[in-house]
Amino acid sequence: MAQVRNKQVLLKNYVTGFPKESDMEIVEGSITLKVPEGSSDVVLLKNLYLSCDPYMRILMYKDTPSFTPGSPLYGFGVAKVLDSKHQDFQEGDYVWGVTGWEEYSIISSPENLFKIHHHTDVPLSYYTGILGMPGLTAYSGFFEVCGPKKGEYVFVSAAAGAVGQLVGQFAKLIGCYVVGSAGSKDKVDLLKSKFGFDEAFNYKEEHDLDAALKRYFPQGIDIYFELVGGKMLDAVLMNMRVHGRIAVCGMISQYTKEEHEGIKNTACLIYKRIRMQGFNVVDYYPLYPKFLEFLLPQIRNGEISCVEDIVGGLENGAAALVRVFNGHNIGKQVLSLMNDE
Amino acid sequence: MAQVRNKQVLLKNYVTGFPKESDMEIVEGSITLKVPEGSSDVVLLKNLYLSCDPYMRILMYKDTPSFTPGSPLYGFGVAKVLDSKHQDFQEGDYVWGVTGWEEYSIISSPENLFKIHHHTDVPLSYYTGILGMPGLTAYSGFFEVCGPKKGEYVFVSAAAGAVGQLVGQFAKLIGCYVVGSAGSKDKVDLLKSKFGFDEAFNYKEEHDLDAALKRYFPQGIDIYFELVGGKMLDAVLMNMRVHGRIAVCGMISQYTKEEHEGIKNTACLIYKRIRMQGFNVVDYYPLYPKFLEFLLPQIRNGEISCVEDIVGGLENGAAALVRVFNGHNIGKQVLSLMNDE
Repeated sequence: MAQVRNKQVLLKNYVTGFPKESDMEIVEGSITLKVPEGSSDVVLLKNLYLSCDPYMRILMYKDTPSFTPGSPLYGFGVAKVLDSKHQDFQEGDYVWGVTGWEEYSIISSPENLFKIHHHTDVPLSYYTGILGMPGLTAYSGFFEVCGPKKGEYVFVSAAAGAVGQLVGQFAKLIGCYVVGSAGSKDKVDLLKSKFGFDEAFNYKEEHDLDAALKRYFPQGIDIYFELVGGKMLDAVLMNMRVHGRIAVCGMISQYTKEEHEGIKNTACLIYKRIRMQGFNVVDYYPLYPKFLEFLLPQIRNGEISCVEDIVGGLENGAAALVRVFNGHNIGKQVLSLMNDE
Repeated sequence: MAQVRNKQVLLKNYVTGFPKESDMEIVEGSITLKVPEGSSDVVLLKNLYLSCDPYMRILMYKDTPSFTPGSPLYGFGVAKVLDSKHQDFQEGDYVWGVTGWEEYSIISSPENLFKIHHHTDVPLSYYTGILGMPGLTAYSGFFEVCGPKKGEYVFVSAAAGAVGQLVGQFAKLIGCYVVGSAGSKDKVDLLKSKFGFDEAFNYKEEHDLDAALKRYFPQGIDIYFELVGGKMLDAVLMNMRVHGRIAVCGMISQYTKEEHEGIKNTACLIYKRIRMQGFNVVDYYPLYPKFLEFLLPQIRNGEISCVEDIVGGLENGAAALVRVFNGHNIGKQVLSLMNDE
């Protein structure tokens, strides 16, 4: 059977510090567009959107279970099923879940693929963000891990990103006071004008994060949704209220450092009786149907919105991913393969 | 009415670094052994045992709500009621709770005093330790905060202290594997011979705490009962298992430092989905009756025991308290006033 081109984004070398475009390379492989005879539980995907996520940096370290140099990156994406030997998926289905950074992927144990029930009024790319892994992360992290109550004071870092922008909107929805931090004036404006944050600030313009937090939270913080780590976490710990909760979702400021910054204020956990909880969305997949039922109507009626930052073409994959770490993205960073021919 | 002598232990100055005996002074005041006329809700106590606890170091900082230089220290103790204008307490009652570091104390709002129902087979001093604040701390921290399950791997630091020795015994009682760390050979021997820890080690003899923990927990740690902070916490974070829990009860290694050590491995909270929870026994006082009902029979049948380190005489109060910070105490440090005349 005829083979077709399969462009791929490979990891070239393990990464130290900030990922650079040159840490990856684009190659042209080839693939037969048919699930191999005799295989079972295998699906063949045409990838449509690939999700650029902070956690992918962790998979570029040498000493963690990680991407393999010379092999394609993998991550979350949206795809169309071209062929299937798995009972849950049929040719023509749209799916989201873990796939390869390439035009076509063969997925041999698709337990991390979820069928998209066609919502023609919602962009398919949303399943890389608001309706996919980052959305469920924000939902489970905020509602399940933080246990928020109306009127509480909520702080979100990396608030303009895929997860942060949603956490802030969820918090407003239930009547919390919400402040977000981000790394540019444009992002700060977006938080206030588009996502309804009560306040927002540019952390790069604050020499004293403790003072900044005291300015926005004179009464202290009940809930901190942690996405950056390092100095921000240390400053937050000093400003938490008694019985505060910290959902530890990510630490993007640390992934690019050779040695993580030391957190000096962990004793505040005792003084303020704080619960600080790391979590991973994989533990919350069973909530996905409930999450969709909650969120789809909110998206349709405009109560909750999202901002995507879409880069087109697999050949721009490395560049798109790097944007997440230098903070050039505004909103959810997506790589679109829709126009790749 | 005649006055009697009232010896007191005063804070002389705010403390930096390790507390020294010279940071406190013993003075002789005087007191009338009668609750003043016209006052209500006031009790007069004769103090019998005073509890020397790590958290007291925190009250010696200048910049925290703290002891006042020139005034007596205060803390947990056991006392006899000499006079009372409070309906819950009668002359002759024994109580435990917050009192002054002095021979006699006037307590004007005794919401932190608890009546001791006379157990003649249990030493009164136990109400400074196993049956008092440290006991309820160990009980609530282990059972309520950690949510332990049979067969789990438990690590306790400062394990020979008032709280640690109990946590280890509770963990054994429900079928966990328990390892403790302490700061001397005698303490390590005590943990294994007296308290039934599966293993114990002297942290001062370990150059590499990460390696030590990997030796005792090749499969990782499910529950860490945190009493020391600093380097030990950093090493533990690297050795936690997925869904591990850390009850943050105290950080005695840090209280004596001008600047706390930085914890570099907080990202492990994410990778291992760890819950790290600070707590304070004050939130668990309602459990006290349930706690007594659980523990008294265990003490009587010898299933749970405790080791006390009792120093006699209020004039030795400063010396007794200092022992908690230089680690010279073996077991619960108590100051006895039973022979003070």
